[in-house]
Amino acid sequence: MAKTKKQPRPKAQTPKGFRDYFGAEVRDRALMLERIAAVYHRYGFDALESSAVETVEALGKFLPDVDRPNEGVFAWEDDAEGWVALRYDLTAPLARVYAQHRNDLPLPYRRYAMGPVWRNEKPGPGRFRQFYQCDADTVGAASVAADAEICAMLADTLEEVGIPRGDYLIRVNNRKVLNGVLEAMGVSDEAQAADVLRTIDKFDKVGEAGVRELLGKGRLDASGAYIDGVGLSDAQIELAVGYVTARRETDTKTLERLGELIGESDVGHEGIGELMEICDLCFCLGYGDDQIIVDPSVVRGLGYYTGPVFEAELTFDILDEKGRKRQFGSVAGGGRYDDLVKRFTGQEVPATGVSIGVDRLLAALREKGRVGGEAPGPVVVTVMDRARMADYQQMVAELRGAGIRAEVYLGNPKNFGNQLKYADKRGSPVAVIAGAEEFDAGKVQIKDLVLGAQIAENATLEEWKDRPSQVEVPRADLVARVREMLGQ
Amino acid sequence: MAKTKKQPRPKAQTPKGFRDYFGAEVRDRALMLERIAAVYHRYGFDALESSAVETVEALGKFLPDVDRPNEGVFAWEDDAEGWVALRYDLTAPLARVYAQHRNDLPLPYRRYAMGPVWRNEKPGPGRFRQFYQCDADTVGAASVAADAEICAMLADTLEEVGIPRGDYLIRVNNRKVLNGVLEAMGVSDEAQAADVLRTIDKFDKVGEAGVRELLGKGRLDASGAYIDGVGLSDAQIELAVGYVTARRETDTKTLERLGELIGESDVGHEGIGELMEICDLCFCLGYGDDQIIVDPSVVRGLGYYTGPVFEAELTFDILDEKGRKRQFGSVAGGGRYDDLVKRFTGQEVPATGVSIGVDRLLAALREKGRVGGEAPGPVVVTVMDRARMADYQQMVAELRGAGIRAEVYLGNPKNFGNQLKYADKRGSPVAVIAGAEEFDAGKVQIKDLVLGAQIAENATLEEWKDRPSQVEVPRADLVARVREMLGQ
Repeated sequence: MAKTKKQPRPKAQTPKGFRDYFGAEVRDRALMLERIAAVYHRYGFDALESSAVETVEALGKFLPDVDRPNEGVFAWEDDAEGWVALRYDLTAPLARVYAQHRNDLPLPYRRYAMGPVWRNEKPGPGRFRQFYQCDADTVGAASVAADAEICAMLADTLEEVGIPRGDYLIRVNNRKVLNGVLEAMGVSDEAQAADVLRTIDKFDKVGEAGVRELLGKGRLDASGAYIDGVGLSDAQIELAVGYVTARRETDTKTLERLGELIGESDVGHEGIGELMEICDLCFCLGYGDDQIIVDPSVVRGLGYYTGPVFEAELTFDILDEKGRKRQFGSVAGGGRYDDLVKRFTGQEVPATGVSIGVDRLLAALREKGRVGGEAPGPVVVTVMDRARMADYQQMVAELRGAGIRAEVYLGNPKNFGNQLKYADKRGSPVAVIAGAEEFDAGKVQIKDLVLGAQIAENATLEEWKDRPSQVEVPRADLVARVREMLGQ
Repeated sequence: MAKTKKQPRPKAQTPKGFRDYFGAEVRDRALMLERIAAVYHRYGFDALESSAVETVEALGKFLPDVDRPNEGVFAWEDDAEGWVALRYDLTAPLARVYAQHRNDLPLPYRRYAMGPVWRNEKPGPGRFRQFYQCDADTVGAASVAADAEICAMLADTLEEVGIPRGDYLIRVNNRKVLNGVLEAMGVSDEAQAADVLRTIDKFDKVGEAGVRELLGKGRLDASGAYIDGVGLSDAQIELAVGYVTARRETDTKTLERLGELIGESDVGHEGIGELMEICDLCFCLGYGDDQIIVDPSVVRGLGYYTGPVFEAELTFDILDEKGRKRQFGSVAGGGRYDDLVKRFTGQEVPATGVSIGVDRLLAALREKGRVGGEAPGPVVVTVMDRARMADYQQMVAELRGAGIRAEVYLGNPKNFGNQLKYADKRGSPVAVIAGAEEFDAGKVQIKDLVLGAQIAENATLEEWKDRPSQVEVPRADLVARVREMLGQ
């Protein structure tokens, strides 16, 4: 006889590294993205929503000598399509979309995209395997006017969502200038250039002296281990350190200083010219050096991008978990990359763009009190008499009609205390109460739960008398009185 | 010697059954979802965004005797988590979320969710493997007041997004009434009950006579094959057909008719009582029988839901691909299901909810001209003189400052014809033109591209004279004049 094996109960849990977002978390993000989209749209960027699933081949993560795709993406084998994967960013899909639809798309093609991306990485505190990105890119524009536009748009976007001028700084650098400095240094080997880049990127961590050691003979690290150096000469080191510390009090002086470092390098001068053009364009549009500046210490991304690079930093202080002041840091980054579509078509297509770290920017807005905080819950109409459900529903309908978020208690109404506990859990500002007595008299009770909580905590008897937290009003005054209590 | 194998170029294509959404498609959907969310929010529903990836165990698609998950979902084996899958709807994740977070969530818990879901099914025309759903559910409310609320909210939602009263109908049925009819028929075998349900669901397709044959001895189908019947007696068939045709001109009469059919069945009378309560509540709230009605012919979903079932149908005619008039049909459905969380906790938790077919509703709104249509492109500022880029950027900045969507041409400006072709591809209503001559004179040319296209098509010389499609205006009048041309 066949026996059905009893299944154990499934665990009610997200996979590790995934999470759920509730209420205000969802709404605040949606509102912020909506505002960002409005700016992008005004700048002529078109919305694009590509599919979450791509062929591994199109994503470019397929290694020729293994039959399983690269680590880092969530991939599986589809019966019809072979290996497919969840997108890990919004740039790789843009490349595929542009190559696929290039005959129908305008050139240049300005597009924005926002949505979740997935990374098959080890999750950690605050590091999730699904998170939002929000990108804007211009495909097919070789002119640095496109880069300047991205910088201007980024500044507008930050201000639009609630980061005021003075609280952010968009720092611009250019890979070509670094190439010029490397040329002046006599570093032509790509591997050595990458070593130099990796080393100057440690400036924040090990300081100037540390970078000098690491560019030269090497350095004992904190644990006592010896880190081999890049082996540059003192003159070379001088140029590299000069580069990363080239920022001066004005862009003009910074560019002058860079000019000294690159010597005769053509590519270096081209890079400086591009930075100058970006500065000029932004200046003409009214952006000041408290908004957009040239800063050669922006090294992150220089390995990937081929021209201008941008990073938006929030400059206000926050307290870290240990109570120390620190700057909020980077919330967006981007730059110019010219091999976007080449993999697909063989044709080189210039592109530039920016990606906003949605969760970090949202965290910043919370920090500044620009979103969320205590979003009030709905007005709760309690149920004293189950048979009067139509009357209670009528009350919430009237409240909603006046634009007030409201709901009737739909649980078991027997225990009235539970209804008030429910209202409390919902963060309700106001509860409405009506039983047989009130219905007979054509009245309702309105309870100010915010005031009630304050009174319970610290009010004196005198205050209580003057402003009771619960009032009885004619049924016809329900909406007006609730509105009053809500301060609307 | 190792040779690097030259990789062929990757194909620039979405996997089959997936697609990209561009521009207005994305914005129209976002706007519609925003409006729906506003109604849900006003009703006290809280937003929830659960992770796209769930353990297969939590989704409930794991078959005990195979080591690969069920067909129908996209699943893969995660090193740490075992089998995981993309969510195939928003209800299964709600069950997991509620079970996982039940100690922190209010009870009842009203939540809405919107986002993509994925189905590993054979794609077909208009059938995609990734599509949007938009759900609202109330968990933990046993009262049919919760069902009535869902119906009322659904009516409000449809009207809010642009389906006016009279163009939709929310039809309500109840599984318990069907159970009552089955009881009166003497059908107690579950398999036979399922056969009856499946058969009466074919009413639209085979008509009353066909259903009678299929409930009885069987029927020759169109291809000449003989379809076995359920084998019911004439008296049984009478009740089953009576049920599915029980709708009368008023809800009261429909409920009376159902009362005749169920005889002494307790569960049947319970079902009729619930339908009556829903009707009463909706009537008291001002909804008429042109909005919400009882209709026993709504059979779809009765196999899944345990109590009230709802379906929203759009009642206006559209022309199908063959030019024949037909009704638009269903855009939302839902009902009550009481075993949502039981799999996880062993505890029965009542729930009711509705799911809106986002793509179908959006298609309906397009049909009615309520969204999209010809969304105008940006004003394009053309580039006659590359050295004047700052001036052109200044123009677009001014236009944007006035809330006008505008962009500067960022492609190679050499060929001016290409710039106008670009403006055409962008659907631009207006192009701005300024070269050395205009700059010297402090003027700009503004070209009305909409009017220009009309003139090119069919205007006479007279009209052309009166209203030229291109005007020269002082630079200072740029914004005002563009605004005028846009009819703002």
